[in-house]
Amino acid sequence: MEPPSHSFKVGAVLFPGFELLDLYGPLEMLGLLGDQVSITLFSEIPGTIESSAGVKGYAEASLKEASTLDLLLIPGGIGTRPLVLENRFIDLLREKAREARLVATVCTGSALLAKTGLLDGHRATSNKIAFDWVREQGPSVHWVREARWVEDGNFFTSSGISAGIDMTLGVISHLYGRESALEVARRAEYLWNEESSIDPFA
Amino acid sequence: MEPPSHSFKVGAVLFPGFELLDLYGPLEMLGLLGDQVSITLFSEIPGTIESSAGVKGYAEASLKEASTLDLLLIPGGIGTRPLVLENRFIDLLREKAREARLVATVCTGSALLAKTGLLDGHRATSNKIAFDWVREQGPSVHWVREARWVEDGNFFTSSGISAGIDMTLGVISHLYGRESALEVARRAEYLWNEESSIDPFA
Repeated sequence: MEPPSHSFKVGAVLFPGFELLDLYGPLEMLGLLGDQVSITLFSEIPGTIESSAGVKGYAEASLKEASTLDLLLIPGGIGTRPLVLENRFIDLLREKAREARLVATVCTGSALLAKTGLLDGHRATSNKIAFDWVREQGPSVHWVREARWVEDGNFFTSSGISAGIDMTLGVISHLYGRESALEVARRAEYLWNEESSIDPFA
Repeated sequence: MEPPSHSFKVGAVLFPGFELLDLYGPLEMLGLLGDQVSITLFSEIPGTIESSAGVKGYAEASLKEASTLDLLLIPGGIGTRPLVLENRFIDLLREKAREARLVATVCTGSALLAKTGLLDGHRATSNKIAFDWVREQGPSVHWVREARWVEDGNFFTSSGISAGIDMTLGVISHLYGRESALEVARRAEYLWNEESSIDPFA
């Protein structure tokens, strides 16, 4: 894939009960790319959004008004449990995910994307503790239990929580080349689990 | 150390230009301890605070009004560069760090703590890219260049960005025992770099 020549537009979705590291781990890695990336946090209603840990995140814009994104990031967290049942949210997520150039999910964020139907027929993964519940949200998805992350077409899906960091370095490698991913990992002093198929938690 | 029987009060300090993962990586691990931990985000003036990546964090309370903390977490980031020169902030940080039972710093957050003078005579570390600048902020600190993190007395200091996660698992091990730290790492699907003295980035 050609490295993007313009500013690469990343949008992440916040919702009540999101998991902190699912969101901010990937955003840290993308942020280290500097000015070539712009990051916006979206939610149904902008403002403060409480994470599963009680710590509040801040969404500055309405998801409905998001223009076409280069990368849509969907974190997981306990809040995905009620959210898969909210049709209006799932419809909105489907619209924004369909428009986006790439979609990346972390942990039970894969359940939200699966619920839109866009993952049907694709290979995908999710975290290990909630795997069976996630699978129920997309019976036509080819779920891969043993993977740190899975890339299939425009979709990157990762295992639990910290696997999102490894997946994001995979996204950076896909877009900008492996050397860029290694440089970001080095600046973050992060030991990248680079082999997406090796999953010590499966 | 006796595991805390009451709710363990964690407070983290936000400032403009803080590094996302320095803050939210440790808070993810602490949050996975559940109800036994309460987490509050503080800043000089409460509200939204822009990180080095442009993404806004949210501080709900004024640092000046923080009651005694069990753990004070100080992230790093490019914003530490002007902040070491702000005497009013450093005085406030000294007061809160002196009261706290434990103080943990990530990356260039070590420079802020060093500037208070409280690290004088103690062993400490920081990230590798800014190491020489950090050392200048505390000439009487025994700086350790090769360490994932360093524990000395009430102070835990870590290397760059993602090393804060490893350090926090070290804090959890210190407080609640190694099995608790391993369980948190497992739930986060995180491969803990458990040996604090092994530093591949030195």
